[in-house]
Amino acid sequence: MEDCVFCKIRKRELPSTTLYKDDDMMIIKDINPQAKVHLIAIPNTHVPYIDMMTEEGINVLAKIISKISHCQEELGITNGYRLVVNQGEDGGQTVGHVHIHILGGEKLKDF
Amino acid sequence: MEDCVFCKIRKRELPSTTLYKDDDMMIIKDINPQAKVHLIAIPNTHVPYIDMMTEEGINVLAKIISKISHCQEELGITNGYRLVVNQGEDGGQTVGHVHIHILGGEKLKDF
Repeated sequence: MEDCVFCKIRKRELPSTTLYKDDDMMIIKDINPQAKVHLIAIPNTHVPYIDMMTEEGINVLAKIISKISHCQEELGITNGYRLVVNQGEDGGQTVGHVHIHILGGEKLKDF
Repeated sequence: MEDCVFCKIRKRELPSTTLYKDDDMMIIKDINPQAKVHLIAIPNTHVPYIDMMTEEGINVLAKIISKISHCQEELGITNGYRLVVNQGEDGGQTVGHVHIHILGGEKLKDF
């Protein structure tokens, strides 16, 4: 947790472009964008994997997914978007803190 | 809704390989797999887009995400997985019934 990039960003120990922040989460720009719009929604609570989340953590995930869907204009994804969650090695998870990628701003290729 | 492929599958009017089914959802094999394991988790209730979902619908989505994380062995994704939700045109959504792709069974490429 102390070495977690996302926790450091939340504590402003590392820089980020933050688009949204509330008591549950923040939405920042991905520094290595894979689409015209590439954001990351990050729950404030540090949990490495979804299966380690409490029911409360899962509810926060739900709130995040809902929030994204209702903030499409602010996020620049009014014409649709893709949510991606990478878990573990096969999933290509690079940061051990559950997060949701938001991709859009252009017609995305098939995955 | 009457023309929805996923609703037809749920009502067994169309065939599918179903791996899991409960009161909230079903998990079926994708007929056009993009990875060694490619499943689709589909809420029973027909809602085209996430932003049209009620709070209850969103909570079902979260339950599905939690369920997947606790059934990794049954789903063949013990070494990790990727969840993908395509929304609208830019997202490449092909069926107008909210669903979650589950990809795994091999080391996935970057997206």
